[in-house]
Amino acid sequence: MESSSPSPSSLNNFRIVYLITQMVGATIVILMGSWVGVHLGGFAWTSRPAIEFNWHPLLMSIGMIFLYGNSMLVYRGFRYARKKPLKITHAVIHGLAFVFTVVALVAAFDSHNLATPPRPNMYTLHSWIGLTAVILFALQYVFGFTAYLFPGVRDSLRSTYMPVHVFFGILGFILAVAAALTGLLEKAIFSMQNYSSLPPQAVLVNMIGMLLVVYGGLVVFLVTEPMYKRKALPEDVMLLTHSPSSQ
Amino acid sequence: MESSSPSPSSLNNFRIVYLITQMVGATIVILMGSWVGVHLGGFAWTSRPAIEFNWHPLLMSIGMIFLYGNSMLVYRGFRYARKKPLKITHAVIHGLAFVFTVVALVAAFDSHNLATPPRPNMYTLHSWIGLTAVILFALQYVFGFTAYLFPGVRDSLRSTYMPVHVFFGILGFILAVAAALTGLLEKAIFSMQNYSSLPPQAVLVNMIGMLLVVYGGLVVFLVTEPMYKRKALPEDVMLLTHSPSSQ
Repeated sequence: MESSSPSPSSLNNFRIVYLITQMVGATIVILMGSWVGVHLGGFAWTSRPAIEFNWHPLLMSIGMIFLYGNSMLVYRGFRYARKKPLKITHAVIHGLAFVFTVVALVAAFDSHNLATPPRPNMYTLHSWIGLTAVILFALQYVFGFTAYLFPGVRDSLRSTYMPVHVFFGILGFILAVAAALTGLLEKAIFSMQNYSSLPPQAVLVNMIGMLLVVYGGLVVFLVTEPMYKRKALPEDVMLLTHSPSSQ
Repeated sequence: MESSSPSPSSLNNFRIVYLITQMVGATIVILMGSWVGVHLGGFAWTSRPAIEFNWHPLLMSIGMIFLYGNSMLVYRGFRYARKKPLKITHAVIHGLAFVFTVVALVAAFDSHNLATPPRPNMYTLHSWIGLTAVILFALQYVFGFTAYLFPGVRDSLRSTYMPVHVFFGILGFILAVAAALTGLLEKAIFSMQNYSSLPPQAVLVNMIGMLLVVYGGLVVFLVTEPMYKRKALPEDVMLLTHSPSSQ
């Protein structure tokens, strides 16, 4: 939290850490796909509710983990772009993440409601943490959109809300990672009779969990490290008179 | 991440949030105690391994959650104290947290190894995340102690290491919260046949999990909000020539 002017070597470090973060994020999605695709029976929609569930972990890891992280990273990964396109990209990626999340939620609820007999929803700690993360995400989207993409909002309001938007954005992301970890664990316990003998599937699930921890740590580092903060560009100046001192 | 000079009103806010944080932390420990004490059969040591396990959640919530959080908060809760006593208090509370953690680990391993037949250790995602948190905690302790309480370490080394120490300290705390959430969930699934009908015990467990999320969020907010950063005192000046620009 000391200096905030990026030196060439700190930007070089940023590129390396950013690249590793992307690779870890992509690996999580691929491994999640192979877990549900290979070990849990593949994919179907409402015709086979038990298999429809498998969309839930896959789409959530794309939406609430990979896209959510990347949407936060946009301001730092593309530091030399102008502010306005970055804001729109941030909103579009988050919007995409939300679409994946809604379909993932439908898959989870369907897999309970369409089972014979139907199984209860929303009773595990995973579901409580996950719903909290999704609600926080949706509120952030509404407030963020209103504050920064609606024309005519007062500058003082925009800059007062910014640290709040950033804090709850990061909190929501960490909550999404916590929801993923609890979700992975409960599905592992529910679906593997031999979890305790650590078969390959169990190692795969635990490794996805550890990669989620690494990805979460890297994303939070990249978005909070003051050295990596985006600096205002000369071209921003006109824009900045309308949207000051955001991220 | 804007201003860093605390105004009277920001310090007033700090006191209120700090108080709420302590109340939430204490509530977690009390509810955890009543869960394992009332619903999971109380406490014993090696004579009854299944019951010995109950020390694990209780001692971990005291050590890795309540004390860990409070040890980080020491620099901000007692901002007007001199630096040296704060450093020693930080080390002592973390040391105490480590003692609770070690006994909690012994209780968990005993409950598996002394069962008839013995049950396997370290196979769930909870155990992998938890062990990572404990190892990170121990490394932080060794490096922090060496850097800041050993005399004669170069000032430049101390101040270079500070942001690393702070980052991994917060990461370790968040990991400890994630470990607590996964641990709560797996114990709930393993111990409740009727988790899905949300009996009072299930609501209690899920509420402890939600309070952990709130406590984690509040602690991270209090230790990262720049307004609440401790300022150097006049009496620190002599001390500061030996240990510059730490938290």
